[in-house]
Amino acid sequence: MRLRCPLCGREYDKPVQRCSCGEPVEFESFKGEPYIGKTVWERFWDFWPVEPSLEFSLGEGDTPLIKSKIGEELGVKLYLKNETVNPTWSFKDRGTFLAMSYAVKAGYKAVGTVSTGNMAASVSAYASRFGLNAKILVSESANDEKVRAVSVYGGDVIRVRGDYGKLYFESLRLGEELGVYFINSDNPFRVDGYKGIAFEIAEEISPDYVLIPTSSGGLFRGIAKGFTELMRSGLIEELPTLVAVQAEGCSPICRAFHDGKERIEHFERPDTIAKAIANPYPPSGNAVLKLLRDFGWECVTVSDSEIIEAQRELAGEGLFVQPASATGISALKRLAESGVVPEGSKVVSILTGSGLKTLSHMEGREIKECPLEGLENCMSF
Amino acid sequence: MRLRCPLCGREYDKPVQRCSCGEPVEFESFKGEPYIGKTVWERFWDFWPVEPSLEFSLGEGDTPLIKSKIGEELGVKLYLKNETVNPTWSFKDRGTFLAMSYAVKAGYKAVGTVSTGNMAASVSAYASRFGLNAKILVSESANDEKVRAVSVYGGDVIRVRGDYGKLYFESLRLGEELGVYFINSDNPFRVDGYKGIAFEIAEEISPDYVLIPTSSGGLFRGIAKGFTELMRSGLIEELPTLVAVQAEGCSPICRAFHDGKERIEHFERPDTIAKAIANPYPPSGNAVLKLLRDFGWECVTVSDSEIIEAQRELAGEGLFVQPASATGISALKRLAESGVVPEGSKVVSILTGSGLKTLSHMEGREIKECPLEGLENCMSF
Repeated sequence: MRLRCPLCGREYDKPVQRCSCGEPVEFESFKGEPYIGKTVWERFWDFWPVEPSLEFSLGEGDTPLIKSKIGEELGVKLYLKNETVNPTWSFKDRGTFLAMSYAVKAGYKAVGTVSTGNMAASVSAYASRFGLNAKILVSESANDEKVRAVSVYGGDVIRVRGDYGKLYFESLRLGEELGVYFINSDNPFRVDGYKGIAFEIAEEISPDYVLIPTSSGGLFRGIAKGFTELMRSGLIEELPTLVAVQAEGCSPICRAFHDGKERIEHFERPDTIAKAIANPYPPSGNAVLKLLRDFGWECVTVSDSEIIEAQRELAGEGLFVQPASATGISALKRLAESGVVPEGSKVVSILTGSGLKTLSHMEGREIKECPLEGLENCMSF
Repeated sequence: MRLRCPLCGREYDKPVQRCSCGEPVEFESFKGEPYIGKTVWERFWDFWPVEPSLEFSLGEGDTPLIKSKIGEELGVKLYLKNETVNPTWSFKDRGTFLAMSYAVKAGYKAVGTVSTGNMAASVSAYASRFGLNAKILVSESANDEKVRAVSVYGGDVIRVRGDYGKLYFESLRLGEELGVYFINSDNPFRVDGYKGIAFEIAEEISPDYVLIPTSSGGLFRGIAKGFTELMRSGLIEELPTLVAVQAEGCSPICRAFHDGKERIEHFERPDTIAKAIANPYPPSGNAVLKLLRDFGWECVTVSDSEIIEAQRELAGEGLFVQPASATGISALKRLAESGVVPEGSKVVSILTGSGLKTLSHMEGREIKECPLEGLENCMSF
């Protein structure tokens, strides 16, 4: 097991969570070949930093790639990677499963996470599945509906008053002290779990662009690592251009990227309806920034009104997603209209989580009322 | 295309929705062999009454079969068929997709359904995907949260005042008149779409028992038809025992079954938390009753408190389901404890829909509150 800091280059022989320089570490690049198998874990067996505990799998991963008609209007071939059909209805399950496979092998009896949304539900669910205790730390402001959807799985949900950014580092410190393995957004096993998204895409098509809603940066890093490892293994011939997509109201990575900065800065007063990607100081922000620079990739911000429109358009294809998950489509529109993404390109957008999780924020459409006797009139076109 | 009434035996050469005797019709039994393919639609290509419109698929079906530890306590091998990871997060998508494949080939420009829950969302979503208009008829009492989760897909949602049972028949009549293809719970294409659940189970294990939450009866009929066709095709050696599971507070099929009646009767004042299976006069009730009798299968009722307990136990394995979806586990406990299901049996329980859909009814667990400075104490075991 060998980890490396992508920023300062320091190496570690044991599974630390972060580098002494403060940045997240990552596993060295894997090389391998694909096998025949039912699950992405089996087919890409050579590529995981720990043996996946298949007996505890809930069937995460192996999600559909769906051809979208939204692409036709934009002159591109658009495919949607539907991560909303994971066991807790977000992509987080892939990373949670792999990280927990490690935790249980390393002898931990408890796991934790700092999150108010998809990751909290995911860690809570898999902790129950793996038979581990869970400490789920949520912020003071997390709404009751979300917290309820986390607490159903049976872990200890703790609402913490205080600075949410500090809580992140405090959780890692306390976790080490108390023997609780924290699986936060940039846990190296978690990030490697997301590689499966790249592997599955490559099994079906060779994309030119991949659009990735980006908050903490863990998902972006995982997908980037997945494609890079496929390339090193000779399994794909070209790397796609990855596009980090952020909401205008909280875009610390894109801001630093466009300002030519080396490091991200804390984004003051984040304000967007895409709550799932509203991290004002993303733990993997600098690592993502470096990837964007090293590979000449893109960072795109989109407005709330563009996000709402894209969410509706996706629902108009039968896919009801969280606002955060719709950002890729908004970004594609900008990129296609400005010519950055040329006509005929093959594009994948990642749909990160289910719209049911943010249902209470969703504006309903008009509902007709009608008596049974007058139904014929109400049904006319 | 040949349809038959399972009750009176009358046959039809065109795709009628119901027999003139008032009962639902079904396609004659298919025979075939499996192929290699990515989707259940392709692998069982010989078994569908209409060619699946794969270009409009949202990736429905091919859901995970998960080994459950709940079985260990009961001395059986329990597997959970997780239908909550379908595109609109319930099993309904399988039937909706197949029925809509027919509707579009038959030249319909509009489809409809009578439902307040999972089926409404499913038909609404797939109508958008297939580019068809949708008329979704919901009852007066349908709650706003559910209706909102339906209306996001863009179909016309019409809240109808009047008798919900009558509305079912009125929808079929009006549909014919107005050229709207209604895909209600017992539409024959819909029922055949559910066969995929049986096919996928048989690809992985040979179950002794399959537990099926039963309301309208369409799901039960579909799974029964699937296993029967596999048997006729020589692809399995034995039929499993199917168990229809109903909530005590609304169990018209089990009541008729245990009373030795030939026909179901309207269940007065249905009262259960398992709203998704609370149909007081199920359209496929008599057809299910006949299957139970013909094959010597079982019908089991479970109480609301048993349902709530089972829902918690499933969440304790990482699977958050609707109350209706937990009924199979409650039934298994009764059957295992009374010795009807012997030790060592291989049992599958169908998890029909996601718990997120009924989140507002879910009682939350206790949430701890804690200041950041005192986190160590709050995290102790």
